[in-house]
Amino acid sequence: TKRYNITLLPGDGIGPEIMNIAKDVLSLAGSQEGIEFQFKEMPVGGVALDLTGVPLPEETLSIAKQSDAILLGAIGGYKWDSNEKHLKPETGLLQLRAGLEVFANLRPASVLPQLVDSSTLKREVAEGVDLMVVRELTGGIYFGKPRGFGTNEKGEEIGFNTEVYATYEIDRIARVGFETARKRRGKLCSVDKANVLEASMLWRKRVTAIASEYPDVELSHMYVDNAAMQLIRDPKQFDTIVTNNIFGDILSDEASMITGSIGMLPSASLSDSGPGLFEPIHGSAPDIAGQDKANPLAMVLSAAMLLRYGLGEENAAKKIENAVLETLNRGYRTGDTLSDGKKLVGCKEMGEEVLRSV
Amino acid sequence: TKRYNITLLPGDGIGPEIMNIAKDVLSLAGSQEGIEFQFKEMPVGGVALDLTGVPLPEETLSIAKQSDAILLGAIGGYKWDSNEKHLKPETGLLQLRAGLEVFANLRPASVLPQLVDSSTLKREVAEGVDLMVVRELTGGIYFGKPRGFGTNEKGEEIGFNTEVYATYEIDRIARVGFETARKRRGKLCSVDKANVLEASMLWRKRVTAIASEYPDVELSHMYVDNAAMQLIRDPKQFDTIVTNNIFGDILSDEASMITGSIGMLPSASLSDSGPGLFEPIHGSAPDIAGQDKANPLAMVLSAAMLLRYGLGEENAAKKIENAVLETLNRGYRTGDTLSDGKKLVGCKEMGEEVLRSV
Ligand SMILES: CC(C)[C@H](C(=O)O)[C@@H](O)C(=O)O
Ligand SMILES: CC(C)[C@H](C(=O)O)[C@@H](O)C(=O)O
Repeated sequence: TKRYNITLLPGDGIGPEIMNIAKDVLSLAGSQEGIEFQFKEMPVGGVALDLTGVPLPEETLSIAKQSDAILLGAIGGYKWDSNEKHLKPETGLLQLRAGLEVFANLRPASVLPQLVDSSTLKREVAEGVDLMVVRELTGGIYFGKPRGFGTNEKGEEIGFNTEVYATYEIDRIARVGFETARKRRGKLCSVDKANVLEASMLWRKRVTAIASEYPDVELSHMYVDNAAMQLIRDPKQFDTIVTNNIFGDILSDEASMITGSIGMLPSASLSDSGPGLFEPIHGSAPDIAGQDKANPLAMVLSAAMLLRYGLGEENAAKKIENAVLETLNRGYRTGDTLSDGKKLVGCKEMGEEVLRSV
Repeated sequence: TKRYNITLLPGDGIGPEIMNIAKDVLSLAGSQEGIEFQFKEMPVGGVALDLTGVPLPEETLSIAKQSDAILLGAIGGYKWDSNEKHLKPETGLLQLRAGLEVFANLRPASVLPQLVDSSTLKREVAEGVDLMVVRELTGGIYFGKPRGFGTNEKGEEIGFNTEVYATYEIDRIARVGFETARKRRGKLCSVDKANVLEASMLWRKRVTAIASEYPDVELSHMYVDNAAMQLIRDPKQFDTIVTNNIFGDILSDEASMITGSIGMLPSASLSDSGPGLFEPIHGSAPDIAGQDKANPLAMVLSAAMLLRYGLGEENAAKKIENAVLETLNRGYRTGDTLSDGKKLVGCKEMGEEVLRSV
């Protein structure tokens, strides 16, 4: 048996409910493939604030760093919404990303045939969409300095942030973009705002330079405003998109909504050498927390990504993905993806059905 | 007779073709309302680069400043795409916006009943969408300093920009947002990324403060990533959106694509006291330039916005808007909005049909 140490960070809102299910699914699929997991649960986000006074306790980060991979539920909730910046749950998440140096965030957005009708896009536009957003996750305006508040020459209050990228940051995320495209349909679209921003001009220059290492991948460039339009006009034109932290935040959420099933979408955040961080792209949904209504499938599929990208356990990853598809084929749906003739189930029951299919 | 001086900036690509039509429509609608226009045509963008070596000649700016309103076609084209920043057509546009101090950019996105099928969104989602994006246009990361290229501590090349807002910049655009919402359905949604960016935290604080001047307007706040999703999930939830320069660039293009008829959408850019700038939100479309294929209606509707917001000539504005609707009702369509049973016409013929309806 192979053994892996997994850090579980259930977080806030629906986080704990969906984490329970993902953990069970992971254990079962693992055991069938001769893999044993040692789980360690740690606090992050709002729950950590309440427990320790900070959104990312040092112990959480150090345990996470020592593990083989990290599974995260979701963070945030009304209770902490008006907290100061350093006491926001979101700050804990950003500190975790920075602390783990997970600079490459992979966000797949595919329209499953079973769920094509949940999209607000017309069937012929949504059908067959299968794209991947590769988002830079530890640089840009999220972390750039200087940042803060001050006064300008006229004595007025200002708030400011710095969008900044260094060549090595662009080069390494570009490579992840090209590698990802190579394993998919061989098309990479780099999104920037190089007609206005210097940070984007350097981005475009470096992505273009790195392209020479990947002659088999077809590279194109697109301005971010146009990309926001093209995702709606004809999302099938995209294979892999690589972009900076803030544009990736916006475009990956837009792309996920196109699939109509944001409760289905996982993500992987990878570093050069340390453990990866795996989480659903949806939030903590405080409005339905504790009501057994959440869709656990994005969390379960994040566990599959953990197996594939975090541990290289492709067979176990496929097992979980197939179990999810089979459960959908058997007609089970949580409220967010319910359509005519399907069986409405709660979070727990959906988990049980997935387990049955593993 | 009332007399107004109008600066015409046809620009590049399809700009001249659609400008010709807008000029004729403006003249005719004006003459019927006892208004006479004195037009002065000046170069900006690529055409100015070729003619004078700079994308915004001083004379163009000074003539524009002295006029009562400015009508702009579109700028940019392949020819100048790899120019250095200060020699890009886009830079001319940014200098024009800054020179005229048009800080408030109004971008309506409405789904016309006649064109609802051009949207890639399902009919029931698109039908009835009628929103307005109020975008801050002369601040933020587009103009913030410091900006440029340099080296970091490790000696690596960096590219950087500054996202910065001062209280007065936020206050004045917030007021335009509230005034706009008040004249519409009384709902204002302010979009920011206040969970991460200090510039957004100040934005949210000031918008919230200004709200006390408008107790009749219902204010909400939304993160930009969520806004990008909600525009697809349920665009009808929005009335007026107010946001910063870069988020406004992205979200207004996304909103326009939702209507399915970006060739139909005008915009107004307004200052506190000087003349306003009116332009279609689409680009210069170099791929179809000179082929009599462009949709001139966004340009024509920009002339209507010029009458309404630039000159206060509501009757003439309505005249033009009604002429456009009538032309659509009579079944005329350019290629971009063609659907079954409609009459395909070129740019010129569409212009003639609009003139006939004025
Ligand atoms: C919660 C927030 C800080 C975060 C981000 O902006 O990165 C979220 O929107 C995401 O995309 O994971
Ligand atoms: C051409 C470009 C500089 C411009 C912008 O980013 O503002 C355009 O996209 C727009 O929205 O008017």
